[in-house]
Amino acid sequence: MSANVPTDIRFSFAGLAPRGGGAGPHCDGWGIAFYEGRAVRAFLDTEPCAKSDMARFIGSHPIKSRTVIAHIRQANRGKVALANTHPFSRELWGRVWTFAHNGQLRGVKALPLDFYAPIGATDSEHAFCWMLDQLRARHESLPSPKEVDREVAALCLPLARMGVFNMLMSDGRSLYAFCGKKLSCLTRRAPFGQATLIDEDRKVNFAEETGPNDCVTVVATGPLTSDEIWTAIKPGTLLALREGEVAASIFSEPLGRKKPQPRIKRASC
Amino acid sequence: MSANVPTDIRFSFAGLAPRGGGAGPHCDGWGIAFYEGRAVRAFLDTEPCAKSDMARFIGSHPIKSRTVIAHIRQANRGKVALANTHPFSRELWGRVWTFAHNGQLRGVKALPLDFYAPIGATDSEHAFCWMLDQLRARHESLPSPKEVDREVAALCLPLARMGVFNMLMSDGRSLYAFCGKKLSCLTRRAPFGQATLIDEDRKVNFAEETGPNDCVTVVATGPLTSDEIWTAIKPGTLLALREGEVAASIFSEPLGRKKPQPRIKRASC
Repeated sequence: MSANVPTDIRFSFAGLAPRGGGAGPHCDGWGIAFYEGRAVRAFLDTEPCAKSDMARFIGSHPIKSRTVIAHIRQANRGKVALANTHPFSRELWGRVWTFAHNGQLRGVKALPLDFYAPIGATDSEHAFCWMLDQLRARHESLPSPKEVDREVAALCLPLARMGVFNMLMSDGRSLYAFCGKKLSCLTRRAPFGQATLIDEDRKVNFAEETGPNDCVTVVATGPLTSDEIWTAIKPGTLLALREGEVAASIFSEPLGRKKPQPRIKRASC
Repeated sequence: MSANVPTDIRFSFAGLAPRGGGAGPHCDGWGIAFYEGRAVRAFLDTEPCAKSDMARFIGSHPIKSRTVIAHIRQANRGKVALANTHPFSRELWGRVWTFAHNGQLRGVKALPLDFYAPIGATDSEHAFCWMLDQLRARHESLPSPKEVDREVAALCLPLARMGVFNMLMSDGRSLYAFCGKKLSCLTRRAPFGQATLIDEDRKVNFAEETGPNDCVTVVATGPLTSDEIWTAIKPGTLLALREGEVAASIFSEPLGRKKPQPRIKRASC
């Protein structure tokens, strides 16, 4: 979520949480990071989100933030452990960067790392460390948002070619969402209406919860609500969200184009 | 707290929490970091610990860990904000390092930083970044525990000369506690007995909670219990705790020795 005012994410979180071990297979831990300025309040848990006491705590306490990244994990690489739980975080240029990833990346651990080292065993954290390494090597201090947009888009491409790379990353100023395979996006602004969660029997009337100038964009693997129009993001696209708006959308060459398979002659027998 | 088995810290936390805004002046936020292997589960809050919903959540859920750092803040440098809330954390050598500090350090921000940059405005976080910078510059990968002990002790000295430097730091392997002015320490091992908190009407019988080989050391600014024998640490001492034991105690030259004041002749009038 990216918003132009500190926003309560509990409605969207209530839509995501049951997909973590309740309605979905992503039962191997979950995490959520709330930005407050350049700092982050992060909660990580190895319990399934749908059954987690900490998730219930988050769901019942309004922690308002302008940038939030949440993730539910289906373990592929790396066992169920706190060190393998997204979102990961590191400091770069005096800001906390956070990162969450769905998918698998073949061969990512061959990418050399210089400044940052993974704590856990996931390919995701290795990819994150590599991206930050590359950004750090190019700039001594925080570049302009547009410069970072371009560089993040360029760094996503080689990773996306390694497998499935649906990714969220933020430094608290911009929220980046890269669609490798599947990602949906929705911007809410005045006039606000009603929304109903797909997985939970829960509605909200945003007109009662918001101010006239509020603007909030939510990105998720699949739509969270049934009565709003979500936009499916085209694979190969990086969205850069700032202040609740899509500030930039950078599309790169098509991904996953299959190489023509060489014909194999059948041996006669 | 350092322990040789994953240990529930709720009893000690119940002793610390009321000192954060209830019985004490340290009402400007609080934080706690629980190690799980090389990773950390951290909770940071800008509310007074004594009144915080999140502190109540921590106090009612047993999160077992072998290394825990907790801190209650009295703001001196830097406003009440998440970015200024201890414990701070950074990754070094593929491990999360956490750091909490009581005191003030004059002139610490003049210490040059290379790799790590503060996110908030405290002198504490600057000192932490400087210590990690120095460790990183000396070693490409994690040195032996004893080497780190010696280097941390050497790095504490110049900081302690800048003011008051009571410090806790860990990488999940060792827990370092430096006494600049005031620090107390207690090791619990078999035969376990009863303990009563000083600030809260609460007792625990550790014999019922522990195994015969358990060993736990707790370090705090002042004793937390009234019926156990706490050891006051001598200013200038770094304790290195591992597996619940004091693995090393390194005393350096006396701190805070006042320079002789030049006599000033009174002008006659």
